[in-house]
Order: sequence, then structure tokens, then C-alpha cells
Amino acid sequence: MWQAYGIMKLVWLAPMARDFLECMNPIPPTTPEELSQHHPADIADALQRLPLQEGLEWLNALPADRAGRALVEMEDDFREEVISELKLEELVRLVRPLEHHETADLIAELGPDAQQQLMQRLPERDARPVRRLLHYAEDSAGGIMSDRFVTLSMMDSVEACQQRLRHNQQFLSEDISYLYVVDEGQILKGIVSFRDLVFAPPGRQVSEIMRKQVAALRVHDDQEEISRQFAHYHYLGLPVLDDQDRVVGVVRSSDILEIAREEATEDMQLMVGLSGEERALTPWKRSLPRRLPWLLVNLLTAFVAAAVVGMYEGVIAQWTALAVFLPIVAGQGGNAGMQTLTVIIRDMALGEISPGDGRRAIGKELILGIANGMAIGVVVGVVSYLWKGSMTLGWVIFAAMLFNQVAAGLAGVLIPFTLKRLRVDPALASSIFLTTVTDVAGFFFFLYFAALALRWAAPV
Amino acid sequence: MWQAYGIMKLVWLAPMARDFLECMNPIPPTTPEELSQHHPADIADALQRLPLQEGLEWLNALPADRAGRALVEMEDDFREEVISELKLEELVRLVRPLEHHETADLIAELGPDAQQQLMQRLPERDARPVRRLLHYAEDSAGGIMSDRFVTLSMMDSVEACQQRLRHNQQFLSEDISYLYVVDEGQILKGIVSFRDLVFAPPGRQVSEIMRKQVAALRVHDDQEEISRQFAHYHYLGLPVLDDQDRVVGVVRSSDILEIAREEATEDMQLMVGLSGEERALTPWKRSLPRRLPWLLVNLLTAFVAAAVVGMYEGVIAQWTALAVFLPIVAGQGGNAGMQTLTVIIRDMALGEISPGDGRRAIGKELILGIANGMAIGVVVGVVSYLWKGSMTLGWVIFAAMLFNQVAAGLAGVLIPFTLKRLRVDPALASSIFLTTVTDVAGFFFFLYFAALALRWAAPV
Repeated sequence: MWQAYGIMKLVWLAPMARDFLECMNPIPPTTPEELSQHHPADIADALQRLPLQEGLEWLNALPADRAGRALVEMEDDFREEVISELKLEELVRLVRPLEHHETADLIAELGPDAQQQLMQRLPERDARPVRRLLHYAEDSAGGIMSDRFVTLSMMDSVEACQQRLRHNQQFLSEDISYLYVVDEGQILKGIVSFRDLVFAPPGRQVSEIMRKQVAALRVHDDQEEISRQFAHYHYLGLPVLDDQDRVVGVVRSSDILEIAREEATEDMQLMVGLSGEERALTPWKRSLPRRLPWLLVNLLTAFVAAAVVGMYEGVIAQWTALAVFLPIVAGQGGNAGMQTLTVIIRDMALGEISPGDGRRAIGKELILGIANGMAIGVVVGVVSYLWKGSMTLGWVIFAAMLFNQVAAGLAGVLIPFTLKRLRVDPALASSIFLTTVTDVAGFFFFLYFAALALRWAAPV
Repeated sequence: MWQAYGIMKLVWLAPMARDFLECMNPIPPTTPEELSQHHPADIADALQRLPLQEGLEWLNALPADRAGRALVEMEDDFREEVISELKLEELVRLVRPLEHHETADLIAELGPDAQQQLMQRLPERDARPVRRLLHYAEDSAGGIMSDRFVTLSMMDSVEACQQRLRHNQQFLSEDISYLYVVDEGQILKGIVSFRDLVFAPPGRQVSEIMRKQVAALRVHDDQEEISRQFAHYHYLGLPVLDDQDRVVGVVRSSDILEIAREEATEDMQLMVGLSGEERALTPWKRSLPRRLPWLLVNLLTAFVAAAVVGMYEGVIAQWTALAVFLPIVAGQGGNAGMQTLTVIIRDMALGEISPGDGRRAIGKELILGIANGMAIGVVVGVVSYLWKGSMTLGWVIFAAMLFNQVAAGLAGVLIPFTLKRLRVDPALASSIFLTTVTDVAGFFFFLYFAALALRWAAPV
């Protein structure tokens, strides 16, 4: 409740809500030299706040490696626009210094013709692996893995490996912690930590010091599940195997972090019926087709709720005070149901729902619905009695509130579980379905009880 | 829209919603030996699905290191209960094999007396660092960092360092990739990657091969900001400095991942007015005090909306069809506003809102509000005209819908930005404030326009 108090400040401070509009505009970059000192992620942030043409000019003025990395760091919407505007020459310059999987991600956004043209301009030693990576879905292990990893042969001696690493150090990316031990067919047999390799007696064989039990991903694994595994088991990195068990890439926890943050919060958007990624600065033309469809679906369901009210128009005509309290019953149900729904969807998103949990959640929500319903029902019942002076109205509202709170809690569990069973993302538009249930149930309980009451006692 | 189609299956498949209740119950563990083969995170999952006493028995039957790590992996609610039930002896056994920061996390959940008793039972070389870690807030860098890291002295030769590492390997945790170079006062001067150290010429000094520009965290940094930094810059790990710039710990990306997932999704819960972490299996007694307060706050705001309807009770008495369409106007506003709100809050959670973005978002939402309002307004206007045969009603609904869609979009931006300016978490109960705005505005526009229309033309 103390939080509620903090919020009460709002009422007094409302006039300053205006102020935030005056807060500074983004600071424009000064010179390409100055800008290129920054981290590519920050360069990307700066550029995507400029008008498109201006951003392109800055991008082309930056050194190729900075500009290329900045392109990789941009948000999807903006990057897509940038790529479609860049000339082939310019794009080739930016793509050259990138890692293969970064190149593949960028190329995937081009049309088939542009893709082919760009690939022809890449040196063959880059084009081949890039082409291979392009086969994997964007949100699969194959789509997010890097192909910069080091394999050791089982039969090699520790010393031979150390030599080889020493001479190839320029090819090792800096964060290499594990080396993958494979047989002649590139099949994964074990892993050796870089530290173990360094400290092992030089005469030993790799197969003697390797750890044999190795967790691994498959190229087609979904990134949401991968992120769950990394979080659950605290992996630092995992090898990725193709269908023949060959090591074809590696995924590191630092790659997963951004994906995890986006995946985890994506459900927030799905819940309210936003189909597809949207950001605060996504242009409205792109936003509209992502928002309007579900609003129209919701309209359909709203008519269902309205039809329930329509059935009881006669009751309302006799007793107009009902119209005042209708939205309270339905609204409180919606809010309570959203609380339940959010708890369930969040657990599902974090991968923490196990078989059998649905049943237990139902039991819990039943009790909570009754407890919340009693508490809120009494308050609304008493207030409405005092306001309109009708004891009957008080009882009707109390009963409707109690029933609707229970319905809200149950719907909050049943909707996501049902969507999941239908193999639809449980977050998808779940809040819209929920408010349909709570509106229909709220209106029905309230007006049905009111109609019953009208037969017994005349209203006020 | 194709997604909407997928959902339509719901209507036909509703009866099977019942089925999921029948899905299997959790598989109980068979023997302590079998259970201890699993990863501690999986052991924790299994135990927290058992009744408390049974879970405790299993925990005490497991080897100390497995049981201790499982305790660390449990969800907060359940761990708290377990810790309060464990005897001191039992707790000491579980805590001994843990890392200092894990011990500190567990001890922090005990009362002051139990804390002291437990600390006395720890060997002094563990008790001192644990006591130090206990000073830091749970959600700060100090609260999440590990104190297992290796420092090198600037003046040492590469060879001396290699020797030292070789002899201390048992103390190194396995995922050490970076070593921290410090001066006599433990002040951070640079970092050396393990790989560089291994391959550097033995005669060089550490200070010659170290990288001097080092990103670092401060002990008091908040974990939400830390997670944003890790995701933005793809760090694998960062050293943590105290107020005197001394290295006191290290945070790795694998530690951040779970925190990031929870932080990112926590906003979903805050938005719907859930104060404090709740999971599907959180016992109802703990859930009630987290849910009811905001429902009661919402009740207050619902009365405000009801008062608006109350002002126009006379209008409704003359024209009861209004009561049927009231919830549609308000509900559509609520849904559209939630879409906007969610986009903004998600961007804020991911740290992607910059100064000046608020202004641009307002402009965007204004356009979207008009576009959505026109589209939905026309549909509802026409349907209501066909249903009730009143052209006046159609126009009234169209106008109210248009105005309320705009109000919803603006509120969806203004509410989170205002909360942020008030230094309240922008997600906190924002959906409740939003529906208040959309209800009040929706009821007002609709009934005000209806009252105006009544003066001109008789209804129907």
C-alpha cells in the first residue's frame, strides 16, 4: 500500500506531466572521427535517432568496421530501412569486416536479387560459410550461432594443440574459453577448457583430459528455449550440432542476453494484441497494421458483451442506477483477471510451468477469487448502498462482484493454458480474450441478479 | 490477421480446455542417489513441487554440495520457507560447500539471531568475506557479484604470473577468462585475458600486455542497469569496484541472464498492479496481499468513472440503448491504450528510451489514435445504426470512439513518462491508471455527445 501512497503524488503533480515534453532532444554526433570512438551499439543508437538520409551519410563517413558493427547493432525496423537505401558498393564495404553470422543476418534482409549480387562480391572463403548460415531460421540456434570456434582432434597430444593455438591466435576470438574435441567426421566427442589445455602435461592426449559429458544445442532449437536453458543451467557457452552431430557453431551467454531480454518482454506485447515487434519510435505506418487487427477482433468480442447488456435493456430502463455500476463490476473483474493472467504467462515465458501446475493454479485462483471478491464486493456493496440508498442494489453488486472475481481468476489460468494446448503462443492476445470473459460474465451476473431482485423488490 | 484465424479454433475446441487439467502430475523423485545425479537447478524444481516437509526430507538426504546448490537455485518464496524450517545444523551443512556470495544470499534471508548463530559456525576464512558481502543490497552489483576472481600485480613478470596460476589452479573457478591487474592498493589498473597471458613472452611485464581501458561496475550499481549494459555491450564479464576503486568482485554474463529474464518480465506484473514477485505456485496467502491493494486502489478510480456515468443518468433513462454501447467505447479505448503503454514500458525496460523520444512518441500516437479511431468508429457506428436503427446513435458512437482512441494513445505515453519523472517505476500499476483515463474519457465523450444529440433530435 505504501506504493499506492507514492502514486498519490500524481494528483498534485499532474501539471508537470507537461514538462517531460520539454526534455532535451537527442544530442547530434559532431564529427565522424568523434562518433567512431564510441561503441558500435552507441553509434547505432545515435544514428537511428537521425532522419534516415542523414543517418546514411554518417554511416558512410565512418570507418568500415565501425559502420558495419553499428549496422548489426541497429534495431530491426531501422536496419531494414537502412539496408534497402544503401547502394550495393556501400553495403559490401560494411559487410566485409563482419563475422559470418552477422553478415548472414544482414543479407537475410535483402531481396533474392540483391542477396545474390552481394554474395558475388564476397571472397569465396566468406561466401561459402555465409551461404550455409543463411539456411537456418533467424530465431533458431543455427540463426544465432557464431562459426568462430576451435576444434581439436581426439588423437592430438596436448603439446601439438598448444602449438597450433599459439600459431593461430590471430584467428581466435578473444572470449574463447572452451575448445571442442571432435573425431575425423567432425562429430563432437568432448570439450576441453582452455585453462585445462594450458596446464595439462604436454605429453597427454586430448582425449585423456577432455570432459565427455557435454551439453549441446541442435541447429533447429528455438531461441526462446535456448535462452531458458542458458538461464536455468547458467551456461557460459554451448556448441551447436547439426543433424549429423557435427559441431557447426557456438552460442555464448553474451549473445543470448539481448535475445533473452527481448523474448521475455515480447510477451507483454503479444498479450495486448500487438502482432510483431514494436518500439516507441517505430513509424506509425508500420505500427497501424500491427495494432488495428486485434482491436477489430476485440470489437467483435465487445459486441458479444454488449449483446448481454442488450438482453437486459428492459431491466436498465426500469432501474438506471444499474448503468452506473455496470462498468465497475466488469472493470474490477478485468483487472483481477489480468493479474492472474500475467502471473501465468510470465511463468510460462520463463519456462517455469510444469505439468500439473495448471491444476494447482486453478485451486489457488479459486480461493483468491473468493477472497478478493468478498473484500471488493463488501466495499462496493456498502458504497453503492450509501450512494443510492438501496440495500437491494448493494446485495446485487456484492454477489455479482464475488462471482465475477472467481470467473476472472479461472479465466486467467484457463486462457493461457488453452492457447498453449492449441500450440498458439499463450501470450497471444490473451488479455483481449480475458476482458471478453470478464465483461460478459460481469454484465451477466450483475444484470441477471438485478432482474431477479426486481421480481422481489421494487428498486428504491 | 492470420493469427486471429488461428485463434478462431478456440471457439470450436473450447470443450477440450478441460483436458489440460488432466495432464500428468509432477513425477516424484525416486531415490536420493538418483536425484543427486541431476543438475541442482532441476533438483530445486523437483523439490519445490513437493509438500514442504517432504521436500525438506529429500534435501537432507542429498549430499551437502548438491543440496546446498539446489537451495540456491530455488525460487525465493519456497527457499524462504525451507530456510525457516531447516535446523541450524542442517543449514550449516548445506551452506559450507557454497561460494561466498551464495552463502550471503541465503544468510540474508535469516533473522538477525539465526544469522549470527550461523556465522559463528562458519570457518573464519569464509565468515569474513560473507560478512562483507552481506553489506550490499540484494539487487546491487555487490549483491550479485562473485568474489572468486584472480588479480595480478602490475610489476610481476608474465612468467611469475603463469607460475602462480599453475600452482593455484584448484582455486580458479572454471570459467575464468579475464585476470585483473591491480596496484599495491588493489586499485584496478587493467585487464589481461587468460589467453594473452598464456601466449605472451615470459619475460614481459604484466603492465605491458594489459589492456588499460576497462569497463567496470560499482558495488552500488542496480542490477536492472547492469543487465541493460551487459545486453547493450555484449560483455562476458565485468569487474566490480568499491568506493575506493578496489576490485572486490566480478559479475559474469551467465549470472546476469537469469536476472535479466526476471527483471524484464517483472514489469508485466507491475503494470497490472502486482506488488512483489509472484509465481503460479506462490501460495494464495502470499498472493492476496500482493494483489488486493491495487485492486482496491482501482476501485477508487472505478468510482470516479462511475460518477461520470452518474452525471448522465438522466440521459440514459431517456435513451437506454446507450447503456449497451457504453462498455464498447470504454473497452476499445482501454485496449488501444494498453497497446501503446506496453510498447513504451517495454522500451523503457530494455533501456531504449532516450531524451526526446517522448515527444516523438506523442506525435506518433496522435496519428495512430486518429487512424484507429476512424477505422473502429466507422465499424461501430455502422453496426449500431443497423442494430438500433438510429443514425444519431451511430454518429455519437463514431465521435466518442475517435476522441477516446486519441485519449488512449496519449495516456499510454503520458502515464509511463510521468511515473518515470516522479521516480516511480513506470510500470507500477500503469494499466490501472490507463483504464481509469480511458473509462472516464470514454464515458464522458459518449454521454456528453449523446446529451448534445438529445437536444437536437429525439432518439430512435
